[in-house]
Amino acid sequence: MGRNWVILGLAVVLGFAEIINGGITSTFVRNSDLVHDMPLDSDVFKIPPGYNAPQQVHITQGDHEGKGILVSWVTQDEPGSNTVEYWAEGSKIKSRAEGIVVKYKYVNYTSGYIHHCTIKGLEFDTKYYYEVGIGSNSTRQFWFTTPPKPGPDVPYTFGLIGDLGQTPDSNRTIDHYLSNPREPKTLLFVGDLSYADAYPLHDNTRWDTWGRFTERLVAYQPSIWTAGNHELDFLPANGEPKPFKPYLHRYHVPYKASGSTSPLWYSVKRASAYIIVLSSYSAYGKYTPQYKWLEEELPKVNRTVTPWLIVIMHSPFYHSYGHHYMEGETMRVMYEQWFVQYKVDAVFAGHVHAYERSERVSNIAYDIVNARCTPVEDQSAPVHITIGDGGNLEGLVTDMMEPQPAYSAFREPSFGHGILDIKNRTHAYFGWHRNQDGYAVEADSLWLLNRYWKPLAESQAAAI
Amino acid sequence: MGRNWVILGLAVVLGFAEIINGGITSTFVRNSDLVHDMPLDSDVFKIPPGYNAPQQVHITQGDHEGKGILVSWVTQDEPGSNTVEYWAEGSKIKSRAEGIVVKYKYVNYTSGYIHHCTIKGLEFDTKYYYEVGIGSNSTRQFWFTTPPKPGPDVPYTFGLIGDLGQTPDSNRTIDHYLSNPREPKTLLFVGDLSYADAYPLHDNTRWDTWGRFTERLVAYQPSIWTAGNHELDFLPANGEPKPFKPYLHRYHVPYKASGSTSPLWYSVKRASAYIIVLSSYSAYGKYTPQYKWLEEELPKVNRTVTPWLIVIMHSPFYHSYGHHYMEGETMRVMYEQWFVQYKVDAVFAGHVHAYERSERVSNIAYDIVNARCTPVEDQSAPVHITIGDGGNLEGLVTDMMEPQPAYSAFREPSFGHGILDIKNRTHAYFGWHRNQDGYAVEADSLWLLNRYWKPLAESQAAAI
Repeated sequence: MGRNWVILGLAVVLGFAEIINGGITSTFVRNSDLVHDMPLDSDVFKIPPGYNAPQQVHITQGDHEGKGILVSWVTQDEPGSNTVEYWAEGSKIKSRAEGIVVKYKYVNYTSGYIHHCTIKGLEFDTKYYYEVGIGSNSTRQFWFTTPPKPGPDVPYTFGLIGDLGQTPDSNRTIDHYLSNPREPKTLLFVGDLSYADAYPLHDNTRWDTWGRFTERLVAYQPSIWTAGNHELDFLPANGEPKPFKPYLHRYHVPYKASGSTSPLWYSVKRASAYIIVLSSYSAYGKYTPQYKWLEEELPKVNRTVTPWLIVIMHSPFYHSYGHHYMEGETMRVMYEQWFVQYKVDAVFAGHVHAYERSERVSNIAYDIVNARCTPVEDQSAPVHITIGDGGNLEGLVTDMMEPQPAYSAFREPSFGHGILDIKNRTHAYFGWHRNQDGYAVEADSLWLLNRYWKPLAESQAAAI
Repeated sequence: MGRNWVILGLAVVLGFAEIINGGITSTFVRNSDLVHDMPLDSDVFKIPPGYNAPQQVHITQGDHEGKGILVSWVTQDEPGSNTVEYWAEGSKIKSRAEGIVVKYKYVNYTSGYIHHCTIKGLEFDTKYYYEVGIGSNSTRQFWFTTPPKPGPDVPYTFGLIGDLGQTPDSNRTIDHYLSNPREPKTLLFVGDLSYADAYPLHDNTRWDTWGRFTERLVAYQPSIWTAGNHELDFLPANGEPKPFKPYLHRYHVPYKASGSTSPLWYSVKRASAYIIVLSSYSAYGKYTPQYKWLEEELPKVNRTVTPWLIVIMHSPFYHSYGHHYMEGETMRVMYEQWFVQYKVDAVFAGHVHAYERSERVSNIAYDIVNARCTPVEDQSAPVHITIGDGGNLEGLVTDMMEPQPAYSAFREPSFGHGILDIKNRTHAYFGWHRNQDGYAVEADSLWLLNRYWKPLAESQAAAI
């Protein structure tokens, strides 16, 4: 396991055939990083100036196809306007959409006015400007770009962040993400947002600071949100017995558009990708709402329209770190067979504060009495990528299962983010970017071959 | 597997040592039973006479210790009174308790007025009469007996029914239960009550018929309720996206008394037993409310007060029928290690429409890479008893895994019920009663030895 990561990078380029007898544990040595949240008076948490100015602005996809956007923001002084004004770049015609406003209490905290406004019927592949704080409020302007119309060979670039929190490391992760020369267009966020629950009584002002901190990314780039365990905010002893209360009030998603009955699991199409979001902390047993939804959802995916079938969730099925080891088993035994049957290309998860990439393996032959319970190579199986390394106050997990299990292709406990750069129906490039490196450096990377259109082993195919 | 069940019964009496190389598949031949629900005009469904007469009366434990009772009933014509009048046998002092009334709509159905009234502070081990329909309504009288005060050597007899439904077989099951010479005092109901969801739009009038049908049992004997998959009543296409809606309105349980935040998981003490109810169709992953509750609950059980630790749920961890095979795996991989650590005596489940009893086995050594995934004998593990053979309209499951797995001690697809007859801190007798037999006949039975006080293999201990 003592190989240098530079050699490794080369090995990855050469293909897995070069790496026999197990995966790689990177030996990159990190600086000792801070693991405290940035102080409340940090610049990144600043409230925008002006009376009742919209803050904590974030956007996500607003429909199933990509022609909608859902804009959310918070006003603190009074409810203010629910209106979003928007226009295509270069156009003189401005449109308006009306949203709703919600608020909630959590123990002794009362939220600001949380606005959610869905805009539908936008043009594909178009840059739009939008303003919130219409009327007497301090108006603020942002922009977003709609994705191209779904189609099999539409290039599109996703970014991946998990377990972000609000430490200096979290800030570095966003810096690196925004400076990545591959220019990700949409963020797939794999759960654990603010870590407000690390504070006494889950101090929800840390949800507000997180909303302001992340605005420079998520007000411009739609984020496909996934709930993690830190979104549960379960505090029955203090009168908060309803899981996910702050998260569900703050981060609305277009779940109804995919026939889901809960914002905790849903899907969106985006360019050439079909993204399925699952909930590790809801019921997933047979007959449950999430199970029934997923059972009906997977056969609907038309790989001729959206070749890339991606699942994101919080708790990974495969990783080999000590902390959180095997926590994903309970969901894996339910859904892994479907992921193989429907040839999911990649599963991205967080939870473990480190990076890991699996081989294409499955573990679905077990029938209780046959002893077949070892993950085996399976070219119909997804690559499982754990990317819970956003940089929160809990720090990195460094204890690992030894020897490195055969299902683990590459692992390293460093903070960073990922890029999924879809080129066409057959090829996508995945890269993992460590925060300590230059913006263009990939500490791990892989050409992914589409499981539906080119189901070859990545190790046996030449890169394009 | 061609042994005769009479010989078998003998073998069971002689102990497991006689049965080497696997368990027993009973070869009892059943009559071809009806599998249609009893018609709506059946006597068992009759509405009691009189204006606004209380119907569908049922009781459950009303607190954690056994000094409370929760009385529920339905009035159809108007809300009527929420009062329960009650008095100890032989006493001239009558007391009153006030409850609440709820109702719900389900698609095009509107429920009657569902009353729930908790009575607390009763004497232990006392027969009480109670009346509902106080005032202008047609009053009806019933009775119940409180359990003895919790204590280690208090004898107490539980009955077990699962997957009951409302067919002639269901009716026979109740007949046999009520005629059982062991006289069970409290019903542990392991889920799947009315099967109303078998009807178009889950016709909730079949919840009402089931309530009237079961009254002769559950108005007199507290039932500890468990939710099964047929309680989900999930019908989003018809505007019913909230799971468990009819069940949660109709069957209240004392969940708050055990610190639970949901009526779908909770516990009660009753005489010498500590009963834990789990939900197979709620979230049970790490960090979820059910997980956190159970994690805190198990260490609280004081085996010196309540030696018998019993878990009931709907989907079994161990059974070897074809239908529903391995559905319990997703919860087993989470909780089985706790059941072993805390020496649960027995787990009762339903779901599979047949009877099965496991050996004492566990399957908790697996770590993904060690291939140790076979159930092995474990004298710290519970006996798993599947008793989903109440007799509903779906009929019996007859397909079985062959050869019979080593973890399976006895299996037979017949309708029936079970008895758990606790004698003292060390011994309890379990019997399974097939509906085709005389009331006193046990088609399978076992002396259970308490895992805390007498953790010997049952096969190696002489019966008392």
